Amino acid sequence: MIVNGKHYRTVWWQANKVKMIEQNMLPNRFKIVTYTKYKQVCNAIYTMVTRGAGAIGGTAGYGMALAAVNAPDKNFYKFMQKAKKDIEATRPTAQNLFYATNLVFEAIKDYKNDPKKAREVALEVAEDIAQEDSDSCERIGRHGSKLIKSGYNISTHCNAGWLAFVDWGSALSPIYWAKMKQKKKVFVYADETRPRLQGAKLTAWELFHNKIPHKIVCDNTTGALMQRGLIDMCIVGSDRIARNGDVANKIGTYTLATMAKAHGVPFYVAAPTSTIDITCKSGKDIPIEERDEKEVLEIDGIRIANHGSHAVNIAFDVTPAKLVAGIITEQGIIKPSWKKIQALNLQPVS
Amino acid sequence: MIVNGKHYRTVWWQANKVKMIEQNMLPNRFKIVTYTKYKQVCNAIYTMVTRGAGAIGGTAGYGMALAAVNAPDKNFYKFMQKAKKDIEATRPTAQNLFYATNLVFEAIKDYKNDPKKAREVALEVAEDIAQEDSDSCERIGRHGSKLIKSGYNISTHCNAGWLAFVDWGSALSPIYWAKMKQKKKVFVYADETRPRLQGAKLTAWELFHNKIPHKIVCDNTTGALMQRGLIDMCIVGSDRIARNGDVANKIGTYTLATMAKAHGVPFYVAAPTSTIDITCKSGKDIPIEERDEKEVLEIDGIRIANHGSHAVNIAFDVTPAKLVAGIITEQGIIKPSWKKIQALNLQPVS
Repeated sequence: MIVNGKHYRTVWWQANKVKMIEQNMLPNRFKIVTYTKYKQVCNAIYTMVTRGAGAIGGTAGYGMALAAVNAPDKNFYKFMQKAKKDIEATRPTAQNLFYATNLVFEAIKDYKNDPKKAREVALEVAEDIAQEDSDSCERIGRHGSKLIKSGYNISTHCNAGWLAFVDWGSALSPIYWAKMKQKKKVFVYADETRPRLQGAKLTAWELFHNKIPHKIVCDNTTGALMQRGLIDMCIVGSDRIARNGDVANKIGTYTLATMAKAHGVPFYVAAPTSTIDITCKSGKDIPIEERDEKEVLEIDGIRIANHGSHAVNIAFDVTPAKLVAGIITEQGIIKPSWKKIQALNLQPVS
Repeated sequence: MIVNGKHYRTVWWQANKVKMIEQNMLPNRFKIVTYTKYKQVCNAIYTMVTRGAGAIGGTAGYGMALAAVNAPDKNFYKFMQKAKKDIEATRPTAQNLFYATNLVFEAIKDYKNDPKKAREVALEVAEDIAQEDSDSCERIGRHGSKLIKSGYNISTHCNAGWLAFVDWGSALSPIYWAKMKQKKKVFVYADETRPRLQGAKLTAWELFHNKIPHKIVCDNTTGALMQRGLIDMCIVGSDRIARNGDVANKIGTYTLATMAKAHGVPFYVAAPTSTIDITCKSGKDIPIEERDEKEVLEIDGIRIANHGSHAVNIAFDVTPAKLVAGIITEQGIIKPSWKKIQALNLQPVS
């Protein structure tokens, strides 16, 4: 996608180095960081220089390729084993991370005694992973754009844009596609998404740089916009989708979906099929992270609430399948039902 | 109500001075300010040292009494006319302000040529206005407390506590009454209430000092708490109620009410009958203030959103009567219907 008029991915390979956007500094500063050692890449994933399922997968692949570049000819294989473990330790619950490290590692196994060839193969696979993520998101955009009529006002929650993937994004991809490829008129109402404000900080930044007309709204305001007939559809991303179509996503998604239902506004979830976890029977099986109350009580380190009071900070909620009009995947738009998901014939990710 | 173990009202008279809590400094600092001139009181209302319908009414009454104290014997009546106009110019849309200034002014009219007696009468009426507000809120507490069972988890939005009135408050009064007078076990989930965070700042401060167990929640989280069965009832305040029972209140109230309906959680509005504006046929007739987008884009003067993006800042929304289980007034709990409101036989406030 576009930043200051130029095309960028969230992470890429350049002259034996890994480059990425420093997302912790957004929206206040746009900075590209460059890493020459795989341990720097580990640290970048750990400290959330890059974040989001697809972006983490892409970064992990490039991290493995960087390890291969720096691995000594002698002990090459051992070095790579260590690198794999180090990378996997950064965000142990991110499925895409393991997918990427495994894929690169399996590919170089055949070249244990040919480090030169192994380095080439590692980079090839890493580039494939990034490209696959971008392609998959682009296809989500193409499929999802069919749902968008010119003149639509679209509500989204949190950041499921290209910053969370290698390119294009999930929830925002249909919007980008509709605007850029189909020249449709679109307007986005971006929920600010308390407590971490990813909507106000990241989604608004993305939309601004890609010239998508938009406004930021407090999470409690979108319902009133629906009441006034100002929202035509909702598109959100997802952190995990259960086998029955229940959707876990950033806290507030369930309220948005319920409000959409109450107003007859179609509510869509956009996610690559890799987000579907067929080992989860329903939303009840999806673990919900509760985070530090400080995220609610402070903003950018400044206390905004009464001293002495505590806060609830549930990071995600589960939207039941019945509130979801469809899941926009790279394979097409599917109904969120056990039957339709079964038909995708997905494999569990270890 | 209680602050640091001691009873306070939001505004009171002491030795020919007006004293009030400096609400702009809450929750970080608890400061009492003292005014000796009515023009200082005007400034206090204008700069929101005190805010909220009942508190503004009480303050305006005391402001008139203070003017009477300082008015010269010669030109007493003229001085008071000027004071009335000055006080009324501070928050021209606050109904209670005009109610208070008119009441004091009418009372002193009979003593145009007896400034000494007029001063006594002005203070008497001002004390009556404050006492009436406190009594009215206390009765709201007594009536509303009947709805609260011991062990209830109650959700509230914004600040409709004693800080917005002279004492007790509206939405929080039933909670105070249930806890203090009836020793019921209550727990409050206070919506932080973006953008101005009156829940996190004022409601949490009140509850903390009055030893009501509570937690602050992001506005987008209360729906998820309802989904988990953690909310037994909602009580909110109101800025204006139409003749058919539609309720205007702080933005987010409509979403909260809709979520409550979807989960079978009873949703109550607590407000003195003076909040009912019988000149408004329905919610459509209630003007909705849109405020500066900076309130959304900045917190305490710090930019929290992408530079270049704009924001929606609708300050209030309208909850249709059908979502409201009852209106808790000083006269009892009434169904929000045209018939029940008609039966109150209210007069329009000019």
